[in-house]
Amino acid sequence: MGWGDLGAFGEPSKETPNLDQMASEGMLFLDFYTANPLCSPSRAALLTGRLPVRNGFYTTNAHARNAYTPQDIVGGIPDSELLLPELLKKAGYINKIIGKWHLGHRPQFHPLKHGFDEWFGSPNCHFGPFDNRVLPNIPVYRDWEMIGRYYEDFKIDLKTGEANLTQIYLQEALDFISKQQASQQPFFLYWAIDATHAPVYASKHFLGTSQRGLYGDAVREIDDSIGKILKHLQKLGISENTFVFFTSDNGAALISAPKQGGSNGRFLCGKQTTFEGGMREPAIAWWPGHIPAGGVSHQLGNVMDLFTTSLSLAGLQPPSDRQIDGIDLLPAMLQGKLIDRPIFYYRGNEMMAVRVGLYKAHYWTWSNSWEEYSKGIDFCPGQNVSGVTTHTQEEHTNLPLLFHLGRDPGEKYPLSFASDEYQRAMEQISVVVQQHKVTMVPGEPQLNVCDKAVMNWSPPGCEKLGKCLKPPKSDPKKCFWPH
Amino acid sequence: MGWGDLGAFGEPSKETPNLDQMASEGMLFLDFYTANPLCSPSRAALLTGRLPVRNGFYTTNAHARNAYTPQDIVGGIPDSELLLPELLKKAGYINKIIGKWHLGHRPQFHPLKHGFDEWFGSPNCHFGPFDNRVLPNIPVYRDWEMIGRYYEDFKIDLKTGEANLTQIYLQEALDFISKQQASQQPFFLYWAIDATHAPVYASKHFLGTSQRGLYGDAVREIDDSIGKILKHLQKLGISENTFVFFTSDNGAALISAPKQGGSNGRFLCGKQTTFEGGMREPAIAWWPGHIPAGGVSHQLGNVMDLFTTSLSLAGLQPPSDRQIDGIDLLPAMLQGKLIDRPIFYYRGNEMMAVRVGLYKAHYWTWSNSWEEYSKGIDFCPGQNVSGVTTHTQEEHTNLPLLFHLGRDPGEKYPLSFASDEYQRAMEQISVVVQQHKVTMVPGEPQLNVCDKAVMNWSPPGCEKLGKCLKPPKSDPKKCFWPH
Repeated sequence: MGWGDLGAFGEPSKETPNLDQMASEGMLFLDFYTANPLCSPSRAALLTGRLPVRNGFYTTNAHARNAYTPQDIVGGIPDSELLLPELLKKAGYINKIIGKWHLGHRPQFHPLKHGFDEWFGSPNCHFGPFDNRVLPNIPVYRDWEMIGRYYEDFKIDLKTGEANLTQIYLQEALDFISKQQASQQPFFLYWAIDATHAPVYASKHFLGTSQRGLYGDAVREIDDSIGKILKHLQKLGISENTFVFFTSDNGAALISAPKQGGSNGRFLCGKQTTFEGGMREPAIAWWPGHIPAGGVSHQLGNVMDLFTTSLSLAGLQPPSDRQIDGIDLLPAMLQGKLIDRPIFYYRGNEMMAVRVGLYKAHYWTWSNSWEEYSKGIDFCPGQNVSGVTTHTQEEHTNLPLLFHLGRDPGEKYPLSFASDEYQRAMEQISVVVQQHKVTMVPGEPQLNVCDKAVMNWSPPGCEKLGKCLKPPKSDPKKCFWPH
Repeated sequence: MGWGDLGAFGEPSKETPNLDQMASEGMLFLDFYTANPLCSPSRAALLTGRLPVRNGFYTTNAHARNAYTPQDIVGGIPDSELLLPELLKKAGYINKIIGKWHLGHRPQFHPLKHGFDEWFGSPNCHFGPFDNRVLPNIPVYRDWEMIGRYYEDFKIDLKTGEANLTQIYLQEALDFISKQQASQQPFFLYWAIDATHAPVYASKHFLGTSQRGLYGDAVREIDDSIGKILKHLQKLGISENTFVFFTSDNGAALISAPKQGGSNGRFLCGKQTTFEGGMREPAIAWWPGHIPAGGVSHQLGNVMDLFTTSLSLAGLQPPSDRQIDGIDLLPAMLQGKLIDRPIFYYRGNEMMAVRVGLYKAHYWTWSNSWEEYSKGIDFCPGQNVSGVTTHTQEEHTNLPLLFHLGRDPGEKYPLSFASDEYQRAMEQISVVVQQHKVTMVPGEPQLNVCDKAVMNWSPPGCEKLGKCLKPPKSDPKKCFWPH
C-alpha cells in the first residue's frame, strides 16, 4: 500500500472512512518511512529496530539490489538478532503474528523460534497457484504446523479476484484480542496481512464496491477490518490501554498499476526504488486518551521506530549491545516534540540517499536497468525526471543530487549545485552521512543463496494432511536479483 | 491553486488547518472542475453559468488555444451575457467583487456595469512592475475609479515576495460582511483574490512560515484568511444563513514550480491543459446547519454550477432564453444525491475531452507545441505519458483515448480499444458528445483582438491621482495565443 492510498492522504476516491477516522482520533504521520522499499527487509527492520544492512536482510550478489525471501531463499532472520516479541516476552507480553512472516521459511527461522507465541499465516507471499512439482504452493501455518496451502485449502480465485483471506485474518485478530483481554495478559499483535500485494484479492462482500477496481476493493476491506479491530478494542474497554499503529512495508507497486497497483500520491516512482514513492508510507498512531485526537506530525519516522517505541511502552530498554536505528516516538506522539534524526534510503548494500530535515540527498540514483525496463518493468510509469530516474546506476557521491522535499516533494527539481542553499544543506548532511558510514557494521548477508531444495515441500505438519512433497536435489546458487 | 494544495486533499505538508476544518464542517467535493484551464474564461463561466465557448471567452485565432484578458485585449464580457450579480439584484442582493475581475478592463466591461455594486481590486493580473511607457502598471479600483497602481501604491516586493494584498482583500471582505449584516441586506461576495498566481507573494507575517517556500506562505495566508472570514460569519451569527464555497479557477501552474507553483496531487499536468491536473479543483461547500458536516461528494461539479446553485439559494430561476451549463448542486449538498451530468474539457474553441461517470474520453490531446516546449515551457514537468501528453495537436475523434479515472486518476493507462469496457463506455459517451455538439451555439469570440492602445493607460479616476498615461496609437491585431 502506498502513501496516497488513504482518503486522509488525498486518494481521490476517499474510500477509507475507518482509517480516516483513526487519523482524526489519533495522529497522522506525514513523513514516515520504511527502512527498505521491499517487503522482507522492511519487516526485518520493523521487528529488529535495525537497518536491513545490519540485520542481514540484504544481498551482496550485485550492487544496490533489492532482495527478499522467495521460496528458494536459504537465509532468514539470524538467531543473533533480537526481535521485538522476544524482548516483549520479558515484560509478560503474549505475541502473535497474523499474516505474512517473510523472514525466512526454513525451520530455524520459524516465528515461534523468534519470540512469537502464536502464528496464523504464511511464510512467503501468496503467489501461485503452483503445480506442486516445479514449485510447491505456499503453506499456511497455525503455530508450529502447516494447516493447508494457498489455492488448495485457502482459495484465491485469480479470475474473479475473490479470496476470503483478509476476513480470516480479521477474525483471528478479533479472537486473539478477546482471548488476551479475558486472560488479562498484555499482548503484541503483529497484523501483517498479505493484502494489498499482487495478486490482489478481496472477499465477496467487497468485490466491485470501489471506484478504484479490485485494488480499491482490497483497500476497502482492509479499511473495514481496521475499523472493526478498533471498535473491538473499544467494546472490550481496552482502547485507552492499547497502542495501535497502522503503516505499510513499502510504497505502492506501480508496476502492478492500474489494475493491481496503488498510489504513492504525488511522490516519485514506487516500490523497489529509493525515491519517496518507494519509501514514504501512510502512517497513523492511535491511542485514545493519550495521543491527542486529530494530531498531525512531521516527525521523521521509520518502521524501525515501532521496535523502540513498543519497548518503551512496555517499560523496556532497547538492547545496548548493538546499534539500534529505531527511535522512541512517544515524545513526538504524546508531547508533539520533533526529534532530530536522519532517514537513510538503502537499496541492498548501498546507501542510495539520506534525508536530513526537509533536504534529501541522492548519492546513487537508479530505478532499474535498461534491460529490465525494456521488458516493460517500469517502477516509474508516466514519470521521468531527467538524470534522476536513471536506468543505469549513477553515482553522485562527489556532488549529491539535492531536493527540498517541502517545495518539491515529487523530487523533480534538484537544487543548483552552485547555490548557497546547496552548500549549506550539504555541509550538514555530509556530517550525518560520514558518521553513519564510519559506525556501520554490516551483518552477514542472508539473501545471497537460493536453492530449490529448501522450498516449502514438506513443512512441519504436512504428514497429517497428506501434503508432503518431495524436494529436488539440493543445488545452492547465488540468487539472481535484477533490481 | 491546485487540487493537491490543501491538507484535506493530501498535500504532504498539511498546512491548511482552516480549509481542512471548513471541509470537516462542510462538504468536500472530490470531482469538481473548472470550465477552462485558464483564469479569465474560468471566471467568465463561473459568473455566467455558461461554457466560455458560449459566453465568448475564447479565441478562434488558432485551434484549441487558451486565451485570457491581458492588458491589450480589446474584448471582454458581452452585454448580452447575464451575470450572477445582475440576477441576484432582483432578489435584493448587494454584490461585491474583491480582487481580480479579469472579464475585460475597458469601460464597458467594468464589473459595476455587470451587476456588481462594489469593487475593490484589479482588472488584470498583478504582473509587473512595468515602466508606464511600453506598459502601464495595473490599476487597482475602488468601485468606479482607480485608486492606485500595483507596484506603485500597492507594493509587491518581487525580491522578498512580500506584499500585503491578501490582508487588504481580507479586511475588505470582513468590512463588507459586517456592513451587510448591520444593514440586514442579503449579499453576494465574490472574493477573487490574486494569490496564489505568480509572481507569488505573502504578507510579512506569513513569509518563511511554510515548508513549501513562498508558494506555501501564500497558501497559508489564504487559509488563514478563509478561517477569519468563516469565524467572522459565526461571530456575527449569520453562518447558518450564509452559503460559502471555496474553489480555484484552474489547476496549479506547474510551469511556475517548484518555487512559484502549486500541486495538482497525483493528477496529470497542470494549468493550460485539459488533463485532470489542469481542470480538477479543490472545492469545499460550507453552510452549517444545512450541509452535513464532514460530507464527501463525488458529484461531478463545475464552477458554472455556482451560478445556478446561487440563484437557487436566492429563490431565483436561471435565465430560460439561453443554454445554461451549470446545474443546481443543492440536492447533492443537502440530500447527498448524485446528479448525472457530463464534464466538458475545452481549450479555446475545441472540446478536447469529456467525462461521463468515471470515464474520460480525450478527443484531442495537446500539452503545448514543440516550439514552446523547446523554450522550456513545460506544463507537465517530470511527467510524460506516451501518446497522451503530446506536443502536436493529436485528434482522436475516430477512436478517443479512454481512461477510467477511478482506477487511473493520473491518466496514464488508456483502455484497450478492443476491450468490451471501451466499447460499452464509448457507446454511452458518444451520445452525450453528439447531443452537446448538436445544440452548441458558440458565442462571438471576445479574445481575438489585441491593441496596445486599450491598455490601462488612463483608467477612470487617474486624473485625481495624477496617474494618467498617454496611450500609443491604436493598432489592433490578432492576439497571439501560443498554447
